[in-house]
Amino acid sequence: MVKEKLIDKETAINRIDPNQLDQLLHPTFDPKAKRNVIASGLPASPGAASGKVTFHADEAEALAAKHEKVILVRIETSPEDIGGMHVAQGILTTKGGMTSHAAVVARGMGTCCVAGCGSIQIDYEKEEFIVGNKTIKKGDYISLDGSQGEVILGQVPTVEPTLSGDFSKLMKWTDEIRRLKVRTNADTPEDAKRARSFGAEGIGLCRTEHMFFGEDRIDYVRQMILTAGNVTTLQVSVTEMEAELGKAPKRKQSSLNKKIKHIRTKLKASQKLYNGALNKLLPMQRGDFAKIFKVMNGFPVTIRLLDPPLHEFLPKEKHLQVVLAKKMGMTLKEVKDRVHSLHETNPMLGLRGCRLGIIYPEIYQMQVKAIIEAVCAVKKKGIKVIPEIMIPLVGTDEEMKVLKDDVKIVAKEVLAKKGVKISYKIGTMIEIPRAALTADRIAKHAEFFSFGTNDLTQMTFGYSRDDVGSFVPQYAERGILEKDPFQVLDQDGVGQLVTTGIKKGRQVRPDLKIGICGEHGGEPSSIQFCHRNGMDYVSCSPFRVPIARLSAAQAAIKGKI
Amino acid sequence: MVKEKLIDKETAINRIDPNQLDQLLHPTFDPKAKRNVIASGLPASPGAASGKVTFHADEAEALAAKHEKVILVRIETSPEDIGGMHVAQGILTTKGGMTSHAAVVARGMGTCCVAGCGSIQIDYEKEEFIVGNKTIKKGDYISLDGSQGEVILGQVPTVEPTLSGDFSKLMKWTDEIRRLKVRTNADTPEDAKRARSFGAEGIGLCRTEHMFFGEDRIDYVRQMILTAGNVTTLQVSVTEMEAELGKAPKRKQSSLNKKIKHIRTKLKASQKLYNGALNKLLPMQRGDFAKIFKVMNGFPVTIRLLDPPLHEFLPKEKHLQVVLAKKMGMTLKEVKDRVHSLHETNPMLGLRGCRLGIIYPEIYQMQVKAIIEAVCAVKKKGIKVIPEIMIPLVGTDEEMKVLKDDVKIVAKEVLAKKGVKISYKIGTMIEIPRAALTADRIAKHAEFFSFGTNDLTQMTFGYSRDDVGSFVPQYAERGILEKDPFQVLDQDGVGQLVTTGIKKGRQVRPDLKIGICGEHGGEPSSIQFCHRNGMDYVSCSPFRVPIARLSAAQAAIKGKI
Repeated sequence: MVKEKLIDKETAINRIDPNQLDQLLHPTFDPKAKRNVIASGLPASPGAASGKVTFHADEAEALAAKHEKVILVRIETSPEDIGGMHVAQGILTTKGGMTSHAAVVARGMGTCCVAGCGSIQIDYEKEEFIVGNKTIKKGDYISLDGSQGEVILGQVPTVEPTLSGDFSKLMKWTDEIRRLKVRTNADTPEDAKRARSFGAEGIGLCRTEHMFFGEDRIDYVRQMILTAGNVTTLQVSVTEMEAELGKAPKRKQSSLNKKIKHIRTKLKASQKLYNGALNKLLPMQRGDFAKIFKVMNGFPVTIRLLDPPLHEFLPKEKHLQVVLAKKMGMTLKEVKDRVHSLHETNPMLGLRGCRLGIIYPEIYQMQVKAIIEAVCAVKKKGIKVIPEIMIPLVGTDEEMKVLKDDVKIVAKEVLAKKGVKISYKIGTMIEIPRAALTADRIAKHAEFFSFGTNDLTQMTFGYSRDDVGSFVPQYAERGILEKDPFQVLDQDGVGQLVTTGIKKGRQVRPDLKIGICGEHGGEPSSIQFCHRNGMDYVSCSPFRVPIARLSAAQAAIKGKI
Repeated sequence: MVKEKLIDKETAINRIDPNQLDQLLHPTFDPKAKRNVIASGLPASPGAASGKVTFHADEAEALAAKHEKVILVRIETSPEDIGGMHVAQGILTTKGGMTSHAAVVARGMGTCCVAGCGSIQIDYEKEEFIVGNKTIKKGDYISLDGSQGEVILGQVPTVEPTLSGDFSKLMKWTDEIRRLKVRTNADTPEDAKRARSFGAEGIGLCRTEHMFFGEDRIDYVRQMILTAGNVTTLQVSVTEMEAELGKAPKRKQSSLNKKIKHIRTKLKASQKLYNGALNKLLPMQRGDFAKIFKVMNGFPVTIRLLDPPLHEFLPKEKHLQVVLAKKMGMTLKEVKDRVHSLHETNPMLGLRGCRLGIIYPEIYQMQVKAIIEAVCAVKKKGIKVIPEIMIPLVGTDEEMKVLKDDVKIVAKEVLAKKGVKISYKIGTMIEIPRAALTADRIAKHAEFFSFGTNDLTQMTFGYSRDDVGSFVPQYAERGILEKDPFQVLDQDGVGQLVTTGIKKGRQVRPDLKIGICGEHGGEPSSIQFCHRNGMDYVSCSPFRVPIARLSAAQAAIKGKI
């Protein structure tokens, strides 16, 4: 119609519902194929996939390593299943809604997912599931239609999406019109590549913890965590005993001195192991970053330093703890004690994000070193990236100041050693209500803000995303919540904090670069909000990049009227 | 000096440091008595106490029931220990700081507490603790000085505080000058009485859950929780099967109908048990409230409806679950399943507060009925109270609206039946950031706001009070946090939300009654903030009432200058 001059480009753009694009971008089942639908659930993440049923994440990983296609079937998923979810063709859960862990993670990965399929009964021990009068065993083939929420018996052939010339023409028009840049959330070169092919203009969120779960490095990560705790405990012991020594009567001093010496020896050994683990992780992280930088040549890449609580990296099951203790040359009790000491009542609000960076500075220092070294390495090959080092979970300006200073010292050292000049930015995620409220103070030390609206929504509502299943479905049914605030940005509440954060931040630093990296960065009405509030970019999962480009253009058109 | 006209009353009031009053109000050790100090910890809650060492909360309760004085000694305390903490003369912990569970709860109760006494090593199995070369066994006497943080061997005689005539004269002067009313946080008639003797002008926070832990009612509370879950599950099953019935072929209908009938029978039985438990709890709650109303004759009493997550009321240990299952005529698996289904990753942000009121409306209905019936009962005896029914954890105006309507229906029914007229108010706690941000909408349905600054601080900072031990001490040491935000209201961040909440609330309802019931309500600088922001009252633990009266007067004097 544009070609025939019946409508102009803007009208064409406005006529398309961004949410409909989602299905265009994923594989679909061959429409000619037969479908034997055995159950229905929620269409939690679009796409189509076939594979062998498996009930455990580690088994999924083992099978995928042998190039088998698997469908991971779980009652619910949890962060420990992340490895298996990454390699699975599709994910099926029997519990949980559109915002359950499985649904959210799957959408982020672009993996097809059917969630909350209540008619299926899983028996983990027998490794089978029952639906109606059918029993599906481990190794049987099933197919999932994530756009319809269907579970299908057997293998159904899939068709890869073919984006027509019209599609890319339309996308080019959106680029002419929109003001907002569109970046992607990507942790791997593969995701980064896919996002680039969809038109992403950089990475808005690269989560380093996903790299920590890799099979070749998880042992070093665990060594780092176990010994970091030891180092802290032993250091405290030494300090306490030295204080005691000062007050002790002479006759007790020699025995105390002996004890101190003994603990110092242990401390030295722990420090060696701790540094050893960090030294092993450094080149791995450097390699991870370099690969991503190559894909993002010419574009900015925002790397978030380690965010999740450390206990997520340690095994909870006793038999795995036994294996770990043996590997580390520790007793089972030592491992257990450390797991126990890291346990938190509300991990969401505990020792994570920049709090880790302050308590265990060596971890962030290693990550910063890896980032800067990677930039230097790719620079030699003519690749240009502007790394943006992002400190997560900042709530006070002091945290930002302390960590910014730390980053600068490390970066300066590396650059002096290499004799290279590069530019980089240091900024923060605004994801704690207090950070938005005191954004003027924080902006003094931050060159960019990225609104982490997932966590910001959790804390502003006082909802734990892992636990909302117990009341949010009823809230939605009864109209107490009009929209799921984890999918559609709550402009009335959370939005106020975003607006305040932007206003206060730019008061102090008018050129403050501002974006969003929560899941809302790929949701049309939220993107409109970001445009109206003067953000510079939105960042979303690779598959949502075209949706964001279209929505950003629609927002710009609306703004003109 | 005032008598001699050397200074005026205001100068006299300004010369006193409110924090020094704290120690005046608690028992102290006889200064002539000998002290054999065996360890030092943090002075977590002032006062002095002696008693027999016990390591378990339930044992403390059993001993207290036999009129024994006990000191509860724990590595840390948790909400499950609350019963034992209530009856103990003093509390000693080896871990945790000034904001640990033990410290905070003890201060609230006015119970003496020494926390974080690291030199003591507890062996729960042997029921003893070791400090230096001494071993103290269960049943041995120790004494605690909560103002100095000292642990003393044996019994030291205590002296009750005697408040001189000068003290009460000073307090009267503060009452002439201050604008802020001072209420108390009290859950028992004893606490209410003590607070009245200190000059409290009503109750600002009466926590009904503490009543639920009583020995005579915890079984009914558990029955209520276990069957509430059953009722919900069975109702869902019936609905699902009826939907299935509609679609089923004729030949399957009769077997389906049989199944539905069977489930309906089970549902009826569960409902009977659920209602039975509620009917048992109703008169108990009514009695609790009536007793408190009598003490507070002529004053307002704010009663918060049930707030904590339900799993806090169920036993976690298997042997206790076995006992419970037997008592309830359930299988162990049924009990375990319910405990499991109530488990949450971040209970702080889960199914609690008004979310419970919406998911299980019968619980709040029972509580409201008990409140209104109690008011009617005491009214006959000439006692006048103005009950303020407070809905906790409101985050959206819809929640407030739904629950306010519920309260009104129940109250109307009771009053019609009794043929009595009373006035009561319905309001909410503002403790979720979103509630402060959308206070204008919430105020349409709320007649009063009480700022719950404990939870508001947790969510605004993203700190879990149960878990801050892992980083807040280091933050304080390094100056990242100037003051502990759980003790001193963070005016820069949390304070912005309080100011916004007040402003927006009064925009819609100019006569909105506003108070504070977090621990900050008893902290001098926070009280100054409340005065400046136009609150009507502060509410604090009984022992802090005089401090609040003095601080409120100082704030009023400051305001005049």
